[in-house]
Amino acid sequence: MAEPELNLDAIASRLEALEETIIHRIIDRAQWHANDAAYLPGMSCFFGGETSSLFELRLRAHEEMDARFGRFCVPEERPFTKDLPKPQREVNLPDTGIRMRDYDAINLTQAVASSYRLLLPNVCPAGDDGQYGSSVEHDVYALQAISRRLHYGAMYVAESKFRADTEGYTALIEARDRDAILERLTRKDVEKRISDRVKAKVKNLQAKVNASVRHRVRPEPIIVYYKDFLIPLTKQGQVLYLLGRA
Amino acid sequence: MAEPELNLDAIASRLEALEETIIHRIIDRAQWHANDAAYLPGMSCFFGGETSSLFELRLRAHEEMDARFGRFCVPEERPFTKDLPKPQREVNLPDTGIRMRDYDAINLTQAVASSYRLLLPNVCPAGDDGQYGSSVEHDVYALQAISRRLHYGAMYVAESKFRADTEGYTALIEARDRDAILERLTRKDVEKRISDRVKAKVKNLQAKVNASVRHRVRPEPIIVYYKDFLIPLTKQGQVLYLLGRA
Repeated sequence: MAEPELNLDAIASRLEALEETIIHRIIDRAQWHANDAAYLPGMSCFFGGETSSLFELRLRAHEEMDARFGRFCVPEERPFTKDLPKPQREVNLPDTGIRMRDYDAINLTQAVASSYRLLLPNVCPAGDDGQYGSSVEHDVYALQAISRRLHYGAMYVAESKFRADTEGYTALIEARDRDAILERLTRKDVEKRISDRVKAKVKNLQAKVNASVRHRVRPEPIIVYYKDFLIPLTKQGQVLYLLGRA
Repeated sequence: MAEPELNLDAIASRLEALEETIIHRIIDRAQWHANDAAYLPGMSCFFGGETSSLFELRLRAHEEMDARFGRFCVPEERPFTKDLPKPQREVNLPDTGIRMRDYDAINLTQAVASSYRLLLPNVCPAGDDGQYGSSVEHDVYALQAISRRLHYGAMYVAESKFRADTEGYTALIEARDRDAILERLTRKDVEKRISDRVKAKVKNLQAKVNASVRHRVRPEPIIVYYKDFLIPLTKQGQVLYLLGRA
């Protein structure tokens, strides 16, 4: 079987296109307050002495639905929840080119979830508006967009770089030299470009927003999120991918 | 019990704020092709000879989850699907000020769904990219945002106008004069302002989009959608509300 082509430009385009989706969803979530109660165990108001938080319950319910629809058959769609139901439909993917036996060998969703919780108070208005259902609904949308971007970048960029420089990476993989792999993967100029682009997008997407009717999100927390979290974690994912490449 | 205040400016602000959410979601959906197969009965690839379309299955699954979380206890959140499960959590709403015995007496979701299907080919790239799961996932997000705006406008604007002009509306309601109610509700200048604003938002939200990586949606189909469908149907909902006001 022919190896499917992986074009680094096409992959970079997909990553760039996902930025708007991530920003749309963070801005939409930020139309509600921080609403800490939605993240506290035992405060979900579910009947029967439910002890999970409303956020946990919503994320699980959403992912159970997604699992039945086959979402997690896609390499970059990694679930936040364990023990999900099997797909109830036939999902036929073309060969993606990703060389992993178990996609969940790169599952960085716990880091996504915890970093996202740190982001929330920096983008949402402080305090409580009682709109817990809407808040956690939009959390799930934002988390899935972030996670998709992270895992797509981890898997596809790493595979593409490996193919372009098979000899160089193979030596480092055989030596299990994580630091050298990380260094070889790193493109500071690209990281700077992403960061500048995200900043411009957050501003431009809200340039004409009527601030008296819609909460405006500052670009800084989202840039920091990209810089300190999303980009480094994507690279960690790339290292994991290369070390575990099947 | 004191009647909760309804401020027409605050209601208009909420409606204006929902515009960005609607546009974000339509743009995000339009990143996939029209994908007609996702809307055809019997093509869902679900096991067991499932005859519904993937779109219908996704909308039902999502609303079943939402129903368990109590979404449809909120006046403006009207379901597209019938026979949904009961809420599994306690939902305590403050008195909304809406005077209806059964919120589903104004349920215009069938019109939302069919008009949305007409909108899709005008915003999505033509043809089929095989991404049916993502397409219908984003359809649900867009439909819920549109429906929320429509029902919120129908109920809250009508109640607010009724309170500001109780005598005038009461006479027309008693005479069951739908046409005169519709005329009294209509503000052509406001409709023009909404239409201009939506046009500017669709443009501005995509002003800096890299068209080589992200499909750009033209403003025209969305303005037409507002003008020919969302605004008239909101007014129809207002008439229904006033005629059925409890």
